Amino acid sequence: MESYLKGISILGSTGSVGTQTLDVIRTHSKNFQVIGLSANNNHPELFKQIKNHNPKYISYSGTSNNIENICSLNGVERTDLFNVATSSETDLLVVATTGAVALKPTFEAISLGKDIALANKEIIIMAGEKLVSHAQTNNINLMPIDSEPSAIWQCLTGESPSAIGKIIITASGGAFRNVPLQNLHKVSPQESLKHPTWKMGAKITVDSATMMNKAFEVMEAKWLFNIDWDSIDVIIHPESLIHSFVEFADGSTKAQISPPNMKLPIQYALFHPKRIANDELERFEPSKFKNITFEEVDKNRYPCFDMALSYAKKGGTWPSALCGADEGAVDAFLSGKIKFVEISEIIENSIKSHTSIEFPSIEEVLESYEWGRKQVENTL
Amino acid sequence: MESYLKGISILGSTGSVGTQTLDVIRTHSKNFQVIGLSANNNHPELFKQIKNHNPKYISYSGTSNNIENICSLNGVERTDLFNVATSSETDLLVVATTGAVALKPTFEAISLGKDIALANKEIIIMAGEKLVSHAQTNNINLMPIDSEPSAIWQCLTGESPSAIGKIIITASGGAFRNVPLQNLHKVSPQESLKHPTWKMGAKITVDSATMMNKAFEVMEAKWLFNIDWDSIDVIIHPESLIHSFVEFADGSTKAQISPPNMKLPIQYALFHPKRIANDELERFEPSKFKNITFEEVDKNRYPCFDMALSYAKKGGTWPSALCGADEGAVDAFLSGKIKFVEISEIIENSIKSHTSIEFPSIEEVLESYEWGRKQVENTL
Repeated sequence: MESYLKGISILGSTGSVGTQTLDVIRTHSKNFQVIGLSANNNHPELFKQIKNHNPKYISYSGTSNNIENICSLNGVERTDLFNVATSSETDLLVVATTGAVALKPTFEAISLGKDIALANKEIIIMAGEKLVSHAQTNNINLMPIDSEPSAIWQCLTGESPSAIGKIIITASGGAFRNVPLQNLHKVSPQESLKHPTWKMGAKITVDSATMMNKAFEVMEAKWLFNIDWDSIDVIIHPESLIHSFVEFADGSTKAQISPPNMKLPIQYALFHPKRIANDELERFEPSKFKNITFEEVDKNRYPCFDMALSYAKKGGTWPSALCGADEGAVDAFLSGKIKFVEISEIIENSIKSHTSIEFPSIEEVLESYEWGRKQVENTL
Repeated sequence: MESYLKGISILGSTGSVGTQTLDVIRTHSKNFQVIGLSANNNHPELFKQIKNHNPKYISYSGTSNNIENICSLNGVERTDLFNVATSSETDLLVVATTGAVALKPTFEAISLGKDIALANKEIIIMAGEKLVSHAQTNNINLMPIDSEPSAIWQCLTGESPSAIGKIIITASGGAFRNVPLQNLHKVSPQESLKHPTWKMGAKITVDSATMMNKAFEVMEAKWLFNIDWDSIDVIIHPESLIHSFVEFADGSTKAQISPPNMKLPIQYALFHPKRIANDELERFEPSKFKNITFEEVDKNRYPCFDMALSYAKKGGTWPSALCGADEGAVDAFLSGKIKFVEISEIIENSIKSHTSIEFPSIEEVLESYEWGRKQVENTL
């Protein structure tokens, strides 16, 4: 057993979670073999990853002589994202893409019995019920790679699901938590990317500033942990040390705590159900972090939060339309077409005319996502 | 199975933990049957308990016509503490005495296959290794009733013991945390009993002010959770909301949180391994408890802490002598014979001449405890 290598493929290998996943794999190189890497067009990073991890399959967009050369030298096969996800040597698929591109390949990987470590929130928001039931049918582990759902998952270890009373998800409050409300109309895209505690991709950092990201995590928790909407709360915790709470029926609450570092939830998913020593990760020391604070969510500051949840609760293809519209609105904000304070309104105005499909197919989920995206473009 | 009643006996039924245990049993009266109650001389309280819970056996000191009458009326048998502990109908024995009186009966109850819920810290400090191994041999649950070890136990649920990195026990800092050091020599016994967050018996409240209690909890954690001395830390957390932390090998930390209430660890032990709904217990709401703080332990303020651990680490009968001396010193302080700041010195001066026995019998453990107590009296 000790010599068994878990075969890992990564969709979105050059993104923030992708590169950190490869860092974790490097720390525990005896335990893992990199099978496939799928990237977009960050050719220098992908080249480095091929050199360091010697995968069997890669996929990327565009052309790169460097990558072509190293591939022919090392016998690496260029293929597409779908084939990376479904390659027979893959035991565990890390889905670290953004948007909806990985939805179909993830479903197919589950059909093939592969475990899934999911950092791509949109997928579970768009097709949560379907995805969870597909994972159960195929008896695979569907594991979150994100600090909050990983915290909930860790707190639930060894506990009976029937003993859950409530989940309380923590939120940093994002880049503009302390900006006076009347100044929010003039914050810039550059400022929005300066997250106080987490270094992440652009889309999720803006989603964090609007707290759309936290609404997404509520949806994710609902499906991953099979819990009622009313039993999920959110609290602002600016230090990002406690990553979530689980309150049990007897009145006891558990929390998972660690200095913000995505490598911990990555490693926890890769090794599940084991915890393996990693001295590189900073520990929570109460004597160092002397003060832990909480604030209620100010709905005036974060209008996206309630708005998003009100549409998500309608079910059907509403969450997909919401996801697409959010992607469109964040793009519009980052490219200077709309103001930060307009994000919520644009999303709502774009999707309110959506015609939801009650038990949608994957195709219909994807179409609703595209519809939401396009609606924002048309609304601008 | 639903109609099965767990038979409970309580040693120390009229003390703080004893009465709260009976409150919890009353809340869940369908699940438990009170078999035996053992008290000292609080006759009115014991009378009430007999009336409310109709036990089969009782033991108490002194005489009480009221108790004799209700016993003959209800067919309750008066016996002694040992027979209450070992009564055949008892499935779970709650040990909520203070001092060493329950040590032998607890060992015998374990031999008879009864589960033990232990609120009597001295027992595990004096004979921790023996007690834990005896519990393992007899395949019974040895469960703590105290917020800190219960927190550790809850955090370890579902986790592999080999994954524990460190335990961090929280301490309130006791009644005199904010008294200027130069004024500590004049604090009174009455003031020492005003614990900021917990309502407990007199001995443990003074032990909390000296942090002897926290040294005892370190010893208790060492034996209950089979962990090295060096892997147990203590931190002051004045709000008493987080009851302890467990840090795992991968860098993740879990905490158990709840507003201070002994009924939670009591219920957790009574129902183990299940969590049963109890709406009477207040929940931790981060929006209400906005601020959680930590302070390092000031060794000048709490000299008992390091002193006690240095003797405990010597093993043998040192911890028993320490326990006895602490009981003597706290008695001396409460009766006005010594000052608060003299407690640590008196204990150390009393026990430093102890001749430890390496693998002591229960008798030798008890003798060392008595020796420690007497040494303090002789030193005064």
